[in-house]
Amino acid sequence: MHKAPSSSNLGPGGLDIAQAFFKPIQCSSTPSSAKRHTKISVIGVGNVGMAIAQTILTQDLADELALVDAKPDKLRGEMLDLQHAAAFLPRTKILASVDYSVTTGSDLCIVTAGARQIPGESRLNLLQRNVSLFKVIVPPLAKYSPEAILLVVSNPVDVLTYVAWKLSGFPSNRVIGSGTNLDSSRFRFLIADHLDVNAQDVQAYIVGEHGDTSVALWSGISVGGVPILSFLERQQIAYEKETLQKIHKEVVESAYEVINLKGYTSWAIGYSVANLARSILRDQRKIHPVSVLAKGFYGINGGDVFLSLPAQLGRSGVMGVTNIHLTDEEAQQLRNSAETILEVQSQLGV
Amino acid sequence: MHKAPSSSNLGPGGLDIAQAFFKPIQCSSTPSSAKRHTKISVIGVGNVGMAIAQTILTQDLADELALVDAKPDKLRGEMLDLQHAAAFLPRTKILASVDYSVTTGSDLCIVTAGARQIPGESRLNLLQRNVSLFKVIVPPLAKYSPEAILLVVSNPVDVLTYVAWKLSGFPSNRVIGSGTNLDSSRFRFLIADHLDVNAQDVQAYIVGEHGDTSVALWSGISVGGVPILSFLERQQIAYEKETLQKIHKEVVESAYEVINLKGYTSWAIGYSVANLARSILRDQRKIHPVSVLAKGFYGINGGDVFLSLPAQLGRSGVMGVTNIHLTDEEAQQLRNSAETILEVQSQLGV
Amino acid sequence: MHKAPSSSNLGPGGLDIAQAFFKPIQCSSTPSSAKRHTKISVIGVGNVGMAIAQTILTQDLADELALVDAKPDKLRGEMLDLQHAAAFLPRTKILASVDYSVTTGSDLCIVTAGARQIPGESRLNLLQRNVSLFKVIVPPLAKYSPEAILLVVSNPVDVLTYVAWKLSGFPSNRVIGSGTNLDSSRFRFLIADHLDVNAQDVQAYIVGEHGDTSVALWSGISVGGVPILSFLERQQIAYEKETLQKIHKEVVESAYEVINLKGYTSWAIGYSVANLARSILRDQRKIHPVSVLAKGFYGINGGDVFLSLPAQLGRSGVMGVTNIHLTDEEAQQLRNSAETILEVQSQLGV
Amino acid sequence: MHKAPSSSNLGPGGLDIAQAFFKPIQCSSTPSSAKRHTKISVIGVGNVGMAIAQTILTQDLADELALVDAKPDKLRGEMLDLQHAAAFLPRTKILASVDYSVTTGSDLCIVTAGARQIPGESRLNLLQRNVSLFKVIVPPLAKYSPEAILLVVSNPVDVLTYVAWKLSGFPSNRVIGSGTNLDSSRFRFLIADHLDVNAQDVQAYIVGEHGDTSVALWSGISVGGVPILSFLERQQIAYEKETLQKIHKEVVESAYEVINLKGYTSWAIGYSVANLARSILRDQRKIHPVSVLAKGFYGINGGDVFLSLPAQLGRSGVMGVTNIHLTDEEAQQLRNSAETILEVQSQLGV
Repeated sequence: MHKAPSSSNLGPGGLDIAQAFFKPIQCSSTPSSAKRHTKISVIGVGNVGMAIAQTILTQDLADELALVDAKPDKLRGEMLDLQHAAAFLPRTKILASVDYSVTTGSDLCIVTAGARQIPGESRLNLLQRNVSLFKVIVPPLAKYSPEAILLVVSNPVDVLTYVAWKLSGFPSNRVIGSGTNLDSSRFRFLIADHLDVNAQDVQAYIVGEHGDTSVALWSGISVGGVPILSFLERQQIAYEKETLQKIHKEVVESAYEVINLKGYTSWAIGYSVANLARSILRDQRKIHPVSVLAKGFYGINGGDVFLSLPAQLGRSGVMGVTNIHLTDEEAQQLRNSAETILEVQSQLGV
Repeated sequence: MHKAPSSSNLGPGGLDIAQAFFKPIQCSSTPSSAKRHTKISVIGVGNVGMAIAQTILTQDLADELALVDAKPDKLRGEMLDLQHAAAFLPRTKILASVDYSVTTGSDLCIVTAGARQIPGESRLNLLQRNVSLFKVIVPPLAKYSPEAILLVVSNPVDVLTYVAWKLSGFPSNRVIGSGTNLDSSRFRFLIADHLDVNAQDVQAYIVGEHGDTSVALWSGISVGGVPILSFLERQQIAYEKETLQKIHKEVVESAYEVINLKGYTSWAIGYSVANLARSILRDQRKIHPVSVLAKGFYGINGGDVFLSLPAQLGRSGVMGVTNIHLTDEEAQQLRNSAETILEVQSQLGV
Repeated sequence: MHKAPSSSNLGPGGLDIAQAFFKPIQCSSTPSSAKRHTKISVIGVGNVGMAIAQTILTQDLADELALVDAKPDKLRGEMLDLQHAAAFLPRTKILASVDYSVTTGSDLCIVTAGARQIPGESRLNLLQRNVSLFKVIVPPLAKYSPEAILLVVSNPVDVLTYVAWKLSGFPSNRVIGSGTNLDSSRFRFLIADHLDVNAQDVQAYIVGEHGDTSVALWSGISVGGVPILSFLERQQIAYEKETLQKIHKEVVESAYEVINLKGYTSWAIGYSVANLARSILRDQRKIHPVSVLAKGFYGINGGDVFLSLPAQLGRSGVMGVTNIHLTDEEAQQLRNSAETILEVQSQLGV
Repeated sequence: MHKAPSSSNLGPGGLDIAQAFFKPIQCSSTPSSAKRHTKISVIGVGNVGMAIAQTILTQDLADELALVDAKPDKLRGEMLDLQHAAAFLPRTKILASVDYSVTTGSDLCIVTAGARQIPGESRLNLLQRNVSLFKVIVPPLAKYSPEAILLVVSNPVDVLTYVAWKLSGFPSNRVIGSGTNLDSSRFRFLIADHLDVNAQDVQAYIVGEHGDTSVALWSGISVGGVPILSFLERQQIAYEKETLQKIHKEVVESAYEVINLKGYTSWAIGYSVANLARSILRDQRKIHPVSVLAKGFYGINGGDVFLSLPAQLGRSGVMGVTNIHLTDEEAQQLRNSAETILEVQSQLGV
């Protein structure tokens, strides 16, 4: 099943004609420079995994892309479907296998495998099924790519990032959850839509747990450099706070809404994760709200817990956590999120 | 259901805060320049339509993207899922509606709607269901965007492009079928894979009917400017012709294979159609094997028939058909394809 | 001299072989859709104009690019040098002429012509020479592209944008000066460098006059959504204000520094203006600090004056001015800038 | 002079505020993954070197860009001018120094240094001055980046690529001259212009010496997959061969023409070299006509000589040379080129 792009179906002619066509240059072997290739592995080729893989391919982020899934037919179908677009894309080597050895030497491993969220199911309910799955997935990833960065997308993402961290034995800067990066994008879209501005001009974070208890940082919203809350105060537009709360409610419900409407989410999470992949692999040092080991930040001291904070991402993974100002209320919400997650974790025995 | 990005859910505050935030400049109204926006409509939001829409969005080909489908829930779910990625993409206005008025003023209308090809079903069997569908789709598209280019992706693509041409009343240069553009990409991928070169260095066409009777133009294959057949002759590598025929067979079967493996095709057709959209809308004047009115070319004289020929595409649609050299065998195959399609068309009464 | 890419040097064969090669499709003429092309004209092919033209070309912002200059040799040399790269770029039609008719139908006209700033010369000293030049440049631009947006880059930019507005007779939303867009980029680079973050995560504006009296908006600086000044206050890092003032001083001096070191500035202004061109032509509605008619904003009431304010740019030009909060000191500095410019303008008699 | 982007001008505050702003994550040191950055060095910051550097930056090909030149002021001016655009570009670390240690760990070193070609001067006359220069440049590059690929742009490029190969001690697959890659682009532009097609649809090579004795491969020209010569034969358009020869003459003269008109060439060579850099660093395995060690190909047996042949380029440099068919006349011209170059080399004593 593990099929590197090759001519194995085509009989012995392949090698001969290729050799006749090119007179090879005598190469000094350069194993070290061969390592400079950028390799991304995506685990799970469901709707989320494939939206991520395809967006990574379109945006030319990797020299090599490896797909892993337990279903060999689906896997081969997705690999072929991507390979058939070769004439329209920069050359990227696309591999697929049920065997994790195909991920060897990855710079970034993106885990999307998991039971699909059933309409109405809370993210926490998905957990126990997924922990078992991670015990199969994470150890071989860590074995075949001991220097990779692990990026967890499966839900509930905060707990599963913790689980991946424990199972991998990796230092915490190399284990990241996609967290509220997408929630924050939805937040920014809704604010931009409301004000008729470009969403890229909106800075606004949702932090904490990716899910029902996420925390919108009202005090930090700025549009084109204008802090919105103090703007509203000065303009004496008091009633708008209600509008902002409505927007947060819409963000929290929007994943459920999309799932109800089309059965799953895919495109936005695909762009969101490709965006993280770029910041990491191209060492962009941009700040993203992603799930990181939060112990020690903002008074979170109860134990090892991952939740989303604005973190600077670069080639070595998480480089630091931004020292944002939280109101007392926001800080308390964050600690509450941490408590909730820790309690869940305590029942897992990882 | 037709929801332009707007703040309708958010109460009356939206307008007020936006007005407070921006002091508008007194604009002379510029309705004519507003028309310079590039608008693409995609009809049908199944796997093919959405892969096309998402690739168009990622590649920043349109200022406005309108989606139409008969299923309002699915449609709204897909629109929201794309909109949620706003923070990661250049600003594009994304609309969706069951009502074709949402497509008003499109530069390009891409029709993907159609019954999904059932595993094992021949492309021709899909026809009658789809003709009925086109009678609902094409007239309103032509009405709302009388200057648009129609790009038909639904299968069987050659006959349906003919049907769209008749129903639209458009001149033939503005009605195009995606045809064998994807088949040719698959062909180029397999040749490139075989020779270990970049697929973008391979020039190779499959023309004729998109389907089982497609014609591979052996004599025109070149790799990095080297014509392969004469290369093989000079190298006396005679047996390779068999390999090439295997490759054509693989191309013909590959759509079926992907459908068997994953249930449908999506990514490659998405890239293929986005590639056509770029050539058309950015007036690239590149040559693509697409389904065009073939009457009068290569001895095809039996009637109005669309099939794929290497055509130059630009802002006005089809600008010309390349005068490629066909062997007698290839020309005969092409005429046979035309006969087959014409016979099918004669049973339709469009 | 006005040479559209054509085969005029190559004798009568050109037409014949092209016609033999393509069998043209009988087109219904589509003059209206032909107008959908995006055309940019750049006036002045010195270092600044060419850096802008080349960046626009690399970023694929236009379907047609017209260059105008008074020196026919230099002009033809630059056109050929760009055209020779055709194989590496998307197809863009590149024209050049000493005659302004080559700009006919432009969507955006970028004026870079002007005497080069002599090392040590203040921007205001350049003025009188450039006003005379604008009387030759602007009226034909307005005549040949009556719906274009005028983007003035020549220095002193604020006064010359006013001059261009008067000479063109265009509404004020369609006349823009590049203003402090580049100063703000330099400001953001230095802050980002200081904090080791990505400059794209820094929101910071320099507004007012592009030059020695520009105004840095300290209160609006935010990094990854964190307002820096209030952050410093909370952290009791008082001395940093001095650092920030040093940064502003560096920004003001940096244009002079680059001119002293290499003789002129080119790359950064090229990227800066291409960035404005994208926001305008792709209707991005992003907020940029650019020179706009400032009368009526922030207590500037002394007369028609252009200076840089954070403005939202889209397909119709300036869509609005952001209602930023200025400290009393900042507002006063802005009004002082306005006074200075108005006084200069009063001596011009435009 | 060697200034990494840093806050050295800004006093001791920089470190403090950065540390207060980010709470660093305890990183396991990852020296090996830090090596995955892509670093390009450009030697010589004249018009050619800077056009290359800027195009590389715009196209986001490197994580780190180092500039070296003997003139510290010009060098610092160019570095600052690029850095000031940070807000408009993906984050790239830009370094500059007169000391070659700044190039340490480069993946690709591009040598553009050399005396500028004087209008009317033959490329060969530039040689002796440049050999002396290369003795200063190449050994430190090889020392600081022992695994780099050397890409020589300075003229006369073929001899200087040979010189760089000897001075570096590198295997021949890692020493490449830009050769006729640009001549071929000019060739393709002129053919495309003549036929009104997209230059990217034209496959056409000029090989051999970059200069007056270059060899146009008429038999290999194809447009959209149609071999032009056999097309003309079939169409009995005999006189066109003259047109084609005119085109080759225009190509040979076009560098001189641009130099006469604007004083130097820059943009096209910038795009051409950035295109090679992409193929190499992103392992694209595309075929380019570049200067490679030609001994043993096409009957060139007189000695170690570099001249342009269609070569496949990837992460390890030159991967092979395409086995193109040459007519006897073409092969003889190629051998003549080799003789000419060898004779020049024999006078150098490298």
